Amino acid sequence: MDQGYDPRTGQPVGEPVPHTSPEEIDRLATAAAAAVPALAPLAGRADRLRAVAAALEAAREELVAVADAETALGPARLNSELTRARVQFEMFAAEVDDGSFLDIVIDRPDPNALPAPRPDLRRMLVPIGPVAVYAASNFPFAFSVAGGDTASALAAGCPVIVKAHPGHPQTSVLSGRVIAAALREHGAPEGTFAVVYGFEAGRDLVRHPAIRAAAFTGSVAGGRALFDLAQSRPDPIPFYGELGSLNPTVVTRGALAGRAQEIVTGFVGSYLLGSGQFCTKPGLLFLPEGHGLDSALAEAVAGAAVGPLLGERIHQAYVHGVATLADEPDVRSVVAPTAPTGDGYTVAPSLFAVSAAAFIKRRGPLLEECFGPTALIVEYASADELFAALDAVPGSLTTTVHADPEAEAELVRALLDRAAARSGRVVWSGWPTGVAVTAAQHHGGPWPATTSALHTSVGTAAMRRFLRPVVYQSVPDALLPDALRDANPLGLPRRVNEPTPNS
Amino acid sequence: MDQGYDPRTGQPVGEPVPHTSPEEIDRLATAAAAAVPALAPLAGRADRLRAVAAALEAAREELVAVADAETALGPARLNSELTRARVQFEMFAAEVDDGSFLDIVIDRPDPNALPAPRPDLRRMLVPIGPVAVYAASNFPFAFSVAGGDTASALAAGCPVIVKAHPGHPQTSVLSGRVIAAALREHGAPEGTFAVVYGFEAGRDLVRHPAIRAAAFTGSVAGGRALFDLAQSRPDPIPFYGELGSLNPTVVTRGALAGRAQEIVTGFVGSYLLGSGQFCTKPGLLFLPEGHGLDSALAEAVAGAAVGPLLGERIHQAYVHGVATLADEPDVRSVVAPTAPTGDGYTVAPSLFAVSAAAFIKRRGPLLEECFGPTALIVEYASADELFAALDAVPGSLTTTVHADPEAEAELVRALLDRAAARSGRVVWSGWPTGVAVTAAQHHGGPWPATTSALHTSVGTAAMRRFLRPVVYQSVPDALLPDALRDANPLGLPRRVNEPTPNS
Repeated sequence: MDQGYDPRTGQPVGEPVPHTSPEEIDRLATAAAAAVPALAPLAGRADRLRAVAAALEAAREELVAVADAETALGPARLNSELTRARVQFEMFAAEVDDGSFLDIVIDRPDPNALPAPRPDLRRMLVPIGPVAVYAASNFPFAFSVAGGDTASALAAGCPVIVKAHPGHPQTSVLSGRVIAAALREHGAPEGTFAVVYGFEAGRDLVRHPAIRAAAFTGSVAGGRALFDLAQSRPDPIPFYGELGSLNPTVVTRGALAGRAQEIVTGFVGSYLLGSGQFCTKPGLLFLPEGHGLDSALAEAVAGAAVGPLLGERIHQAYVHGVATLADEPDVRSVVAPTAPTGDGYTVAPSLFAVSAAAFIKRRGPLLEECFGPTALIVEYASADELFAALDAVPGSLTTTVHADPEAEAELVRALLDRAAARSGRVVWSGWPTGVAVTAAQHHGGPWPATTSALHTSVGTAAMRRFLRPVVYQSVPDALLPDALRDANPLGLPRRVNEPTPNS
Repeated sequence: MDQGYDPRTGQPVGEPVPHTSPEEIDRLATAAAAAVPALAPLAGRADRLRAVAAALEAAREELVAVADAETALGPARLNSELTRARVQFEMFAAEVDDGSFLDIVIDRPDPNALPAPRPDLRRMLVPIGPVAVYAASNFPFAFSVAGGDTASALAAGCPVIVKAHPGHPQTSVLSGRVIAAALREHGAPEGTFAVVYGFEAGRDLVRHPAIRAAAFTGSVAGGRALFDLAQSRPDPIPFYGELGSLNPTVVTRGALAGRAQEIVTGFVGSYLLGSGQFCTKPGLLFLPEGHGLDSALAEAVAGAAVGPLLGERIHQAYVHGVATLADEPDVRSVVAPTAPTGDGYTVAPSLFAVSAAAFIKRRGPLLEECFGPTALIVEYASADELFAALDAVPGSLTTTVHADPEAEAELVRALLDRAAARSGRVVWSGWPTGVAVTAAQHHGGPWPATTSALHTSVGTAAMRRFLRPVVYQSVPDALLPDALRDANPLGLPRRVNEPTPNS
């Protein structure tokens, strides 16, 4: 059973939700496979996505209330997150209407092509098939049942089975009910969408022959285990995991010179946002040696409000993680971890510091991502030491740079190049939390940030994870899919390559 | 040592080539990683690719001679294949010049965006890093050292280390020398390109920390082993394998009515092309029961010239494979396998037939891809039996349909939908061998055709396998890569999204 708890009190919320049996997984996955042909046409797809958006909006009050009871993230944040979830469905609906995601290319026959005459070739992207989505705990709407993975897979034309996160089962049940009803009412076939529950159900799902791809947001350990299952199938499937990220943030002497207090306030606000439970939390802050900011940082932390953590496991991991850091030789407590004073999963924030030299030497234990309101300052003596310390950090979703672009031009270039080499998003003079949902956005990065550095889980390009190419060779016009016919009856954007001119 | 042999005689060709040591692999991979920054700029990249094309052309006579000695594919085919290899480098050079492969998207800041204001976001694709390429035996130029994987990875801006196929070591040495010299003379840094030899070298390569992606063309067993190594790394890397494909080809009663002899000639020409050593060989031909074509087929086979196979292992596998097929209950020999009469790796062609009912029942042993001049005819009694038999075939690179589009309209639609669902290329009224190298082309398909149904190993889209996105957030114009600057100094195609109008 999945049982939700109120993080403010540790008391149960609502009824427990039973785990999904292997037989039910098989029934749902088989139904999903059967739904593939009916979901393939573009007609109606954008309307269905907009219907889901409208249904989420209509259920806003109830959704926010149940999510707040299970996560304690607060109505302001949860209302904003629900808007994000709704906007994601609307954004993907617009992408479906636009049609350029189909990446249509038409090569007309070319008798003069080298090394051999070219036949008529017409390529488009088609849905990959049923997708398994693994929900995260820290975004009960935007990375959960109603999240971007669900929206992008449905937009790609794929049936979706979500494995709910055990941290918010009632939110998952309600989100699933709202989405399923909207889809059904707008003509989606049986098998288009389902939510399943339980650890074993998640393992059964990724191994089911009908599942053609999986998307996951969560821990390195959990993601790696499912990735390994996906890759060891008789027929391996793509597994898009967003696993863990330290999000190094570099501050140079030049940046401190002008705006030290602004940087202190910005950093503390970012690493404590959502009680430090974001995959884009700046977990490592690189500061020049002798920065003299300890008391300003401690003051900013003391003035911040930090809510309880999302669940018992995150709570335990935080308490253990900060105790380990505090015990590390060479690690200094800027804000020492203290025993929690409240009920439930309440914790106190903390902040540590270490020299770059010690960080490089003992990097292993200092490189564990710790969910919750903590971060590690790495103090560097020189640019070379800064570079060496940055090179010790594994791949990240983001790298942030605060510097003086004129006075430190050479250093800045070197930092931006390193940032692009080791992460998917390079943030200038800002903070990595807060991920805009747009066409240009990329939420990904080298391992362990993601299992597939080539793909994103945020923004319109997220659809590409669930589409595969098919090319039609010399197929008569009347037999082609509408998207590829000469008359272009759907009015889709297409690249058409005419034959080489006779020479 | 890799030793080449003349397939016509079985005698050694040239000197043996020593295997690459683990220390040398480490040295080469480290040098490749060091070359990454110097290869990143677009400037000079297209020129280098054209220089390789010109160098291959300049070495044509020598390359074709040594490849013919090692493969016995004959000068006509090898000259055409060398042209293809050259054209591939030229095509990718044009793609680099065009620049749309960078997939640049610029979102201008939008204070009215929902659920939060949008910062300036600019995304482009960047090279993934050093790529390991595993050469195939059956295309000593176009899928080997000078092949499409090498060309597309270099075009993406990645250093390349090719693991040579042991079937044509002297061709590999010469191709490598020609390519390396052309790259060096056109300013490519040390570490840009290398060729390595030996089975263990291939395993060392895919496990080396500096290697960021791998591309493979070859057997299911060999590809799966390397795929498993790539996925079990501490940091898994993308592995693009093109492994095996039966390429089902369906002929309906309607198609036979009009042009039975044309189909017989076309089919025999296609399955015997290159002595049946193409990954796109039509290995399964679906014919209506009672087709009465046995003698026409046998006659066409008898009239065809079949060269020796490429190597001893392919030769042994063919002899074993056709003997197994001939022994299968319910399998009829249309052209019975006979003992080879020539020297070296010479073989006689063969052709088998089985009922769809028996095929469905005993599908396992009948679904082994057998490289060489053999194929299996599956005889179906009804459309339903045809569909059931097609559903028993694993994912393929191609599916081909010969039918009467008017008289059999409903059947044709069902066949084309099935073809698109289970393969990457749908061929109408033609034959799957002969893969045009174009923008719309797709050479891929569901497992085991490829490990990644989302990507192609032929055509311009092949570059996408070796590129990952990076997004720059709020980075001042002067600090952005040239490709993303406001003035667009490189004149690249870009999608620019303006802010939402004030409402």
